[in-house]
Parts: sequence; structure tokens; C-alpha cells
Amino acid sequence: MRYFLDISYKGTSYHGWQFQKNAHTLQAEIENAISRLLGVQTPIMASGRTDAGVHAKQQIAHFDTVESIDVEKLEFRLNRFFTRDITINSIVEVKPDAHARFNANERAYEYYINQKKNPFLQELSYYFPNPLKVELMNEAASKLLGTQDFESFSKVKTEVNNFICNITKARWQIENDSLVFHVTANRFLRGMVRALVGTLLEVGLGKLTVEDFIKIIEHKDRTAAGRAVPPKGLFLSKVTYPSSVYSN
Amino acid sequence: MRYFLDISYKGTSYHGWQFQKNAHTLQAEIENAISRLLGVQTPIMASGRTDAGVHAKQQIAHFDTVESIDVEKLEFRLNRFFTRDITINSIVEVKPDAHARFNANERAYEYYINQKKNPFLQELSYYFPNPLKVELMNEAASKLLGTQDFESFSKVKTEVNNFICNITKARWQIENDSLVFHVTANRFLRGMVRALVGTLLEVGLGKLTVEDFIKIIEHKDRTAAGRAVPPKGLFLSKVTYPSSVYSN
Repeated sequence: MRYFLDISYKGTSYHGWQFQKNAHTLQAEIENAISRLLGVQTPIMASGRTDAGVHAKQQIAHFDTVESIDVEKLEFRLNRFFTRDITINSIVEVKPDAHARFNANERAYEYYINQKKNPFLQELSYYFPNPLKVELMNEAASKLLGTQDFESFSKVKTEVNNFICNITKARWQIENDSLVFHVTANRFLRGMVRALVGTLLEVGLGKLTVEDFIKIIEHKDRTAAGRAVPPKGLFLSKVTYPSSVYSN
Repeated sequence: MRYFLDISYKGTSYHGWQFQKNAHTLQAEIENAISRLLGVQTPIMASGRTDAGVHAKQQIAHFDTVESIDVEKLEFRLNRFFTRDITINSIVEVKPDAHARFNANERAYEYYINQKKNPFLQELSYYFPNPLKVELMNEAASKLLGTQDFESFSKVKTEVNNFICNITKARWQIENDSLVFHVTANRFLRGMVRALVGTLLEVGLGKLTVEDFIKIIEHKDRTAAGRAVPPKGLFLSKVTYPSSVYSN
């Protein structure tokens, strides 16, 4: 039997999702909890890794069991196990070949910026007080839409074969005390959202024009883009699957 | 010259507002910063103390200087001094006899509850998953309005002469992922908001009726009321002064 875990986590005190031998990671923490509660070593596979300090409103991971399990009971016990930084939102049975990583057809991220100092957002938002021209940032963001090569916004050390992504949403919005960048794509490259945000901030500051921004995309060279913003403002917010992965 | 400081703070890592000899307090932290930056020991007086773990969206405190100061410069330097938990929202000159505690004519508090587990609200909201009848909690809350004796909701050890408060707002509202209690009064007794919320939760659970709640108010006995809820959900949200305290 295969199940999808729908997870939220605050990434502040973790060295990212992916298991590492000598570091506290979300994958290890969650695998350990499930393995203990099910009484058998149970590996989990996420939709994608998140970097150290990055949060998730919704991360999806799959795991297998030999027999059918009581999902509500396991959800309750896992949430009691994780007291602080991790929440299990749901556990649902999926088809045996449903894959959290390969079947995800869309990932959405959000990047939070607070322009006014705010002690309650300290670990969840990037404090950036300089005045920003949000209309220009949105004009530049609209140039990201569609299927393009985004090598300019990828980390240099990476294992991928190509840098082609299809971005279907890229928009800044003011929400309560925050300025939030919403970006959705079929896939993201390593460090991509943080590099995009850093470069769009340079547009907002007037250091780059929208034309410069277009040239940076076309340039396919990471050194052309702006510096990456800190991980604490970044949230993986939604992972979408075709309905065919779910059992009837 | 006298000034009002408008301050926000996350109270999680402090032993409350009020100075204590061997504990980390907000008053000591802020007095120390102002005294350092002004180069002279500068005591501050707040609108009221907040307990250990309680937050403030707006706390007001006054302090005096011998000469006129550049308020924007001091605000900037204080915000650079406090990197995490404390924000100075503004510093304004007031009349020399304006008093942050005695001249405040209204204080507003908010208490945040999350019914769904949420890793991002862990230090800022009380996780309470049991189903609640919010309409009944609001019916009971409406019985708090007006000038009444609130001894039932005061800590037993207290220095006040009487327990009379005038509550002008007491209402539960659903806001994003939270259930929030808004309460405004001319004054509050020690532990009062947390005891009110604890007792209103018992109404919401069906353990007390609205009639029981009225009797608890009339009883004037702390042991009649429900247990206090944890400090982490409580925010001092606004302190109001007559316009006469401000200089022209």
C-alpha cells in the first residue's frame, strides 16, 4: 500500500529536507517517527528537497506499508510525536505506483518580505526596508511566464540535464504586513526562487531595468543574476498531482 | 523633555515586562539600550506590565531627557540595537506631565487560538483542537460589557484597591487560521484576559452555560472561573491616550 503524507514544517532549525549523515533534517525526523510508530523501517520520498531554513505550508511525501493502515490514527499519533515544527495535515492512500516526486505536475512557492520591522515575523519573512517599486517588479516577473531556459537562476553545482521550466504564475502581492512573491512552475532548479527574488528586488530598487531583467534570463549565466535572498522568507506552498494518482 | 516609545515585542524569551533582579525582562533590555545610546541612565515607565511569555503589538512607555533629541535617529539606532524580538514603531514627544500608565484611558488585548495544528504559530497562538461553539462564547462575552466588578478573573495576590473595570469590547472573531478574542477596557486586573479566555473556552466546549458564566462574574471569586490559558496566545494590541497628552 502506498500513502501520501501532506506535511507543513517550519524549517528554521533544520538543515533542509534531504537526509544527511551528520545533520538534523526533516526527512530523517519524519522517517524516524513513522518508522517508530509503524514498528518497521519506512523510507519516505518527497516531491522535492527544500534547502536549510526553508519552510513548507504543503510538502508531499510518499511511503509504503505491507498492510493497510488506519490513516487517521497514524496522523493523530504523528502530530502528537511532533510537538513544535512539523504538522501532518493528512495521510491519504494513493495508487501503488503514485510517486511524490515524478508525478507532481506543479509546485508553488511563496517568498515573504516585510518592509516594516516586525518581531513576530522574524523567522518567517525577510526584513527589507528599502523602498520598492512593486509595479516594476511585477512587470519584470511577467517576463518569467512560459517555458524558458532558467540557467541564470540555477545554482552552479547541480545534477540536472537541462534548465527548462514552465512558469505559470509569477506575481507580487501585498498581504497584511507582507509583500509576497507567488511563483508556480512544473519544476524549479536549485536555489531558483531565491535567485529570482533577489534579482526582482534589484528591479524594485531601480538598480536593474525590466530590459536588464529580460537580458539576464536570456544570458543563461548565474553570475548575471542578483544575489539569493535568505531562506527564512521562502515557503513551499502547494504541490499538485493529477487526480489519477489517487485511489478511487 | 518627555517622549512616548511605541514598542512591539515577542515575549517568548522574556520574563515579562517588569524589571526583576535576576531575570531577562523587556524593561531592563529596553532601558539598557536607551541608556547606552543616550549616554545617561534613562528609566522607562510602561502603560502596564505584561506577564512572562506575553507579546505586545503596541506597548507604550515614557522616558525623559534633559535636552531635546532627534527622535528619528534614536528610533533607527534602537531598531539596529534590537535585532530580533523588539521593534520600536515610533518615538514622539509628549507634554512633560504625560504619563504612560496613568493617562492611558483604554487598553486592548487579543488572544489567539489555532484549532488546526500550525508550525508557524507555535509561539504566537494557543493550539486548542477541541470543537468550540463560537456563538455561545460570543453570547457569554457580551455579558462582560460595561462597568462591573471582575474579582472572579483576577489573580489572588494583587495590590489593587478594587476590581472594577469598564469593558467596552469583548468579541471572538475568526481571522485567517485563527480564532481571536478581542477585549478592550479602561484597565485590566492581573491575569484577567487569560482567565476570561479560559472560562469562555469552557462555555464553547459546553462545560458551562451562559447562565453559569453570568454567575461566575457575580460570584467575585477566582476559584469559580476556569483555568488561565497559556501566555503565548496573548498580545497587548493597543494603548489609547487622550489627545491632550501630545504636544502641539
